[in-house]
Amino acid sequence: MNSQELFQNILKKKSFLCVGLDPEITRLPASVAGAEDPIFEFNRRIIDATHTYTAAYKPNFAFYESYGQKGMAALDKTVRYINKLDTNIFIIADAKRGDIGNTSKMYARAVFSEMPFDAVTVAPYMGEDSVTPFLSYPGKWAIILALTSNKGADDFQYHTDKGQRLFERVLSISQRWGTTDNLMYVVGATRAELLADIRKIVPDHFLLVPGVGAQGGSLAEVAQYGMNRQCGLLVNSSRGIIYADSSEHFAETAGEKAREIQEEMANYLAARF
Amino acid sequence: MNSQELFQNILKKKSFLCVGLDPEITRLPASVAGAEDPIFEFNRRIIDATHTYTAAYKPNFAFYESYGQKGMAALDKTVRYINKLDTNIFIIADAKRGDIGNTSKMYARAVFSEMPFDAVTVAPYMGEDSVTPFLSYPGKWAIILALTSNKGADDFQYHTDKGQRLFERVLSISQRWGTTDNLMYVVGATRAELLADIRKIVPDHFLLVPGVGAQGGSLAEVAQYGMNRQCGLLVNSSRGIIYADSSEHFAETAGEKAREIQEEMANYLAARF
Repeated sequence: MNSQELFQNILKKKSFLCVGLDPEITRLPASVAGAEDPIFEFNRRIIDATHTYTAAYKPNFAFYESYGQKGMAALDKTVRYINKLDTNIFIIADAKRGDIGNTSKMYARAVFSEMPFDAVTVAPYMGEDSVTPFLSYPGKWAIILALTSNKGADDFQYHTDKGQRLFERVLSISQRWGTTDNLMYVVGATRAELLADIRKIVPDHFLLVPGVGAQGGSLAEVAQYGMNRQCGLLVNSSRGIIYADSSEHFAETAGEKAREIQEEMANYLAARF
Repeated sequence: MNSQELFQNILKKKSFLCVGLDPEITRLPASVAGAEDPIFEFNRRIIDATHTYTAAYKPNFAFYESYGQKGMAALDKTVRYINKLDTNIFIIADAKRGDIGNTSKMYARAVFSEMPFDAVTVAPYMGEDSVTPFLSYPGKWAIILALTSNKGADDFQYHTDKGQRLFERVLSISQRWGTTDNLMYVVGATRAELLADIRKIVPDHFLLVPGVGAQGGSLAEVAQYGMNRQCGLLVNSSRGIIYADSSEHFAETAGEKAREIQEEMANYLAARF
């Protein structure tokens, strides 16, 4: 998928919502906890209830790896289920990978050849050869961490060399490695006031924005400061949707929460396009 | 395992060698390619031939994930095999993990509860809450990337704020998060001349040093600049050992290569302890 196709899907769905699929066994509603594959069953019901309102899904690998081989099997089933339901939905492997070149090549094979993901999140610390192997698959994307939504972002991401903060250097340097059709950046919604600065460096790239909802970021500010001529935003919500309700009606509630966000997004899109 | 126990094992083995277990299907010798589980069979034969000379093993997760669920099953078998053979061998999950706090907690569960690893490599970009969940397992370690051995290390790790390079900031700040019994650092052997600077910041921590062998680093220099009063070094070699010979005698050759390195290490240890 290229950026124009992603933009067209966003316009069609009237949504730039990405739903984070982060299942925790201990938080699963009783009504799925007894299923043969409770993680997949939970995901399947969330997906069925939310996909109408959703441009993208983002399973975070930690939540699957922590249940060992069963967890990874559920992840595999989940991504294939989404792909079969609607091939236009953008599926992100939130895995924060990155290693020396010949090793990143193997990580790219894992998410793009072994599994049908469209994109993978990548940590930038190890530099160019840790990222470029993810850019050699036509139609696939690397999403580089720039400014994250957590408290620890303050520890290193603001390290400033000659007026340039580390996250700004990451944006400046790394955009040379790919194009606006295969590189995206993670920018936390909890730092929405910095989105204007970030748009000066990467005006045309898509941004994946976590931190709306449970982490406290504002969708209105993200849309105001972050939107570009192709929308340029995928805004993620995980816990605020998938754990909104722990009863047997969890999927319906997740669908309602996703629709609420989608309707707000539709207004921001209508005002612009 | 604490640092004193690790040091004692190093003295007993007369070795601070870590063997990287990075199996690539396309490079496996014909004599194992036909086995029911070729990746595990390759690892098992390498481990049998090298464990006498080895203080640690380090499977890199990319090489297993790239073969999907079969690859992860082979990884699981491999780490249990090492653990059963010799519980004193230190086993490192080279996975370069790191995410927001509640997610890193799940990654920690994956390597320390689901699998019996002693340590995991962690990328520092997301800061404190991305690392500390790995430090809450007694006897388990986080190994933080400081200065890596690849070319891309130049892109961000030297970003300099008031005379302090990023890798120096990572060392300075992150050592407050743990102790010399649960925190180690990755420092590439290809940057051996910087080991003296690094030892000024972290005199007492263990360092995991990749890059000797195929990547061109010098063991003599690493020992000279990096050794501390508890040895303080685990030096990794992957391709230089496991792919030294592609014939049916690959395991014997790997054993010889490991023994050559171990003998050189024994000299450096004898000169100091």
